[in-house]
Amino acid sequence: MVLIVIGMLSHIQLDPQSETPLYRQLFDLIRDQIESGTLARGERLPPTRELAVQLGLNRTTVSAAYERLETDRLIQGHVGRGSFVRGPEPRIALAWEQVLAEDEGLRLAGAAPEAAISFATSRPSERLFPLDDFRLTCAEVLASSRAAQILQLGSPAGYAPLREHLAEGARSEGAARAGDDVVVTSGCQQGLDLLQRVLVRPGDTVIVEDPVYPGLRTLFQHSGAHLAGIPVGPSGIDIDALERAMAAHPPRLVVVTPNFQNPTGATMPLDSRLALLRLARQARAVLAENDIYGGLRYAGERVPTIKELDDTGDTVLLRSFSKIAFPGLRVGWVVAPHPLAARLAEAKQWTDLHTDQLSQAILLRFAESGRLAAHHARIVAAGAERLHAVLEACERRLPAGSRFSRPQGGMNLWVRLPEPLDAGELLGRAQREGVSYLPGRFFAVSRHEPGGLRLSFAGLEPAEIRKGVAVLGEVFADEMDRVRRTGRPGPAPAMV
Amino acid sequence: MVLIVIGMLSHIQLDPQSETPLYRQLFDLIRDQIESGTLARGERLPPTRELAVQLGLNRTTVSAAYERLETDRLIQGHVGRGSFVRGPEPRIALAWEQVLAEDEGLRLAGAAPEAAISFATSRPSERLFPLDDFRLTCAEVLASSRAAQILQLGSPAGYAPLREHLAEGARSEGAARAGDDVVVTSGCQQGLDLLQRVLVRPGDTVIVEDPVYPGLRTLFQHSGAHLAGIPVGPSGIDIDALERAMAAHPPRLVVVTPNFQNPTGATMPLDSRLALLRLARQARAVLAENDIYGGLRYAGERVPTIKELDDTGDTVLLRSFSKIAFPGLRVGWVVAPHPLAARLAEAKQWTDLHTDQLSQAILLRFAESGRLAAHHARIVAAGAERLHAVLEACERRLPAGSRFSRPQGGMNLWVRLPEPLDAGELLGRAQREGVSYLPGRFFAVSRHEPGGLRLSFAGLEPAEIRKGVAVLGEVFADEMDRVRRTGRPGPAPAMV
Repeated sequence: MVLIVIGMLSHIQLDPQSETPLYRQLFDLIRDQIESGTLARGERLPPTRELAVQLGLNRTTVSAAYERLETDRLIQGHVGRGSFVRGPEPRIALAWEQVLAEDEGLRLAGAAPEAAISFATSRPSERLFPLDDFRLTCAEVLASSRAAQILQLGSPAGYAPLREHLAEGARSEGAARAGDDVVVTSGCQQGLDLLQRVLVRPGDTVIVEDPVYPGLRTLFQHSGAHLAGIPVGPSGIDIDALERAMAAHPPRLVVVTPNFQNPTGATMPLDSRLALLRLARQARAVLAENDIYGGLRYAGERVPTIKELDDTGDTVLLRSFSKIAFPGLRVGWVVAPHPLAARLAEAKQWTDLHTDQLSQAILLRFAESGRLAAHHARIVAAGAERLHAVLEACERRLPAGSRFSRPQGGMNLWVRLPEPLDAGELLGRAQREGVSYLPGRFFAVSRHEPGGLRLSFAGLEPAEIRKGVAVLGEVFADEMDRVRRTGRPGPAPAMV
Repeated sequence: MVLIVIGMLSHIQLDPQSETPLYRQLFDLIRDQIESGTLARGERLPPTRELAVQLGLNRTTVSAAYERLETDRLIQGHVGRGSFVRGPEPRIALAWEQVLAEDEGLRLAGAAPEAAISFATSRPSERLFPLDDFRLTCAEVLASSRAAQILQLGSPAGYAPLREHLAEGARSEGAARAGDDVVVTSGCQQGLDLLQRVLVRPGDTVIVEDPVYPGLRTLFQHSGAHLAGIPVGPSGIDIDALERAMAAHPPRLVVVTPNFQNPTGATMPLDSRLALLRLARQARAVLAENDIYGGLRYAGERVPTIKELDDTGDTVLLRSFSKIAFPGLRVGWVVAPHPLAARLAEAKQWTDLHTDQLSQAILLRFAESGRLAAHHARIVAAGAERLHAVLEACERRLPAGSRFSRPQGGMNLWVRLPEPLDAGELLGRAQREGVSYLPGRFFAVSRHEPGGLRLSFAGLEPAEIRKGVAVLGEVFADEMDRVRRTGRPGPAPAMV
């Protein structure tokens, strides 16, 4: 048998010029013979040395082919006896469902599919992007003497000239003190993630607003923290409920969005901010202030940030260019007391080394050139128009009994449909009419409001907003009519 | 006393035109009087309503000032009795050392300070960056019809056209199969971090090479994993030691860098790769192949990636543009079976939403235009020259008894100084002579070689390499002489 095998194999021409390595050509050939049955189970392959001579190959090439055959369980080697054909066998692949199963239930719910008019994403309108200004900014950055340095490995804490710019800005508005440092992050989301990594241990209590942005909730759920959601009303987080929750479970970390909270759009008044500061201080909890929407005030008077109000300087302030400039460029920053900032920068290093330097340099130039301020003014004007459109449309179009928040800025408005409407169940119908939104379950922490839904209005034109809310109003009113007529909600669509 | 207080306060002019809010002006003023002792401990402040009338202010402004005074513990309110001066008290700031203390010992060791000639960082030379090509690429991307979309919020899995490009590249070299997906990450480091987040739970065993890149070690230490380091020899990870370790502690994850490992520069031959694949398969462990240096081969024949050799497709392949193009742009990618890729993209979303889209689009255009291939050819040629320079200099200049690896590519070479030299203790002297490197302790997982040090040569000119190694050779030889004369090492410098 051995001679037959050698004879068969020696008839085959291997091609040294091929892109396929020789060992692989030999492996393929023997595998084909095994899989076709030409080489039967139990047959012995020639010794590697012998076959190498026969085929004019290096012995290591033959060994590699045999090794591979063995890896694939096509042959089996026995010391001192040679290699024997085992025959084809199913390949042993990992059962990924088992490997990954533990995480079930913690997944971030998938976003709603895009509809013609989508209220589902909290983002600016790309139609407002000042592309010419952006091109000019890019060209200036790359024409500068720093271009090569920008493309080179950077610092975990951020591109130094941008950090200085941001620190100076924070100092001039009273939001940074002498003991504070700036750490640049890949957006606000990473700022929160780094805080979680540095501060939160499994079992720690973390207090967040309820409802809250799903990325924040999911992040802290993954950290193993005990997540306590405190209701958010028209004046932001409920201070009395917060005080009770903090007494019951002293938190390690409290995360709030005092300006134009996502999803409710609520803004905390000054007295709530001061009360929150006092509570956090008493509990020795770290207070993180997510101010990602703070630059987008369309009406009413500015309220000082908690960071400004905090004479200890301990409050951690998170900001980003995402909402006021370009979300596709992932640049945010954290203003924090030096010991914490140093630890955040360390965590940043083993998370992803540092934030993209080109985008940091471009956004710095965009800001220093005055183009950011000009763009900012335009998007605030556009935001005011959109906010007006969505509030007016909600007033006119939503069915009687609906309630909705009256944000003074930001990108989001929160609707509560009258009972027994379920915003999650009605989403499918709205999508079939070409309009989408995110229902309350995406944002629920400790309690779920079936009637709740978020309308993200900033990315849409006023006319789209009016049309979209009109469609939603009809879908919701139609369901209310049905409930009144039949005494129960219509059949829920299949979950898909 | 009350009248006096009202009288004093009413003398003060508040300035409605000031950038400082009125409440804050009032707060500052009362605080000054308390801190100066003009208002003494125990004095009662006028009721807010009364003072508001007196000063012509809105009552909420006065309330806010009082609230703030109370937060700062300068006054204390008693229901029905009014607010009383408490007097100044030390502000209660967080003891950040305590808040952060738990993490001690897990910090990533700080990098060595930069010297005139630094072998300390594994990065390309910025003098080789093709800035004109880069500017042109940027301009083309921003002139395209996709510019606004690129600046808009993107997908957690990556910019779709780049993912397609990378998937096609991986398929054409046999490294991606039908069941594989590409997830774009913020560099390889984030690819490893996402794997850790999705796969590793505290107590899991993770097997890595020893010595290994400190970012990888620190990342898995933070995950709470049991980290097992397997010695790396001239042929990469020691397969026999690996087999024993896997039998002792079945690992959840095995991470290897088969090409030009950091820090040793070692490359695993084909048979080791096949053996590793077999071991991982038997143990049902996830095998992650970090191929960040794979594109930088200067000599010898290409060895197939483990991913190519793996017919099950289960191997996870990590790559990046950082070493072959621009480290300042944080774009890497993972090729993984679909179920794992989906989970990585989910984790990416709550980590930092998505990778910077401008850099993704620029690198795609850089690749598709052929400019990446041209740059790649230049840096491989330059790398070959630098590798030759460092090997020759080590041969000629290092003291007798030194050993060093002979990489065929990459950016790093590993030196083992003869006993009893300690590379960590000698670093200070080398730095005073203007040359730096990273000593072995930065890379040690399970065992520390005091004589080990990494020379990262890719960022330096050949002349700098020759000069730097000559200086190191003198420092090391000088210490050997001293040891021979005195029978013991010179005094260790103070740890600073």
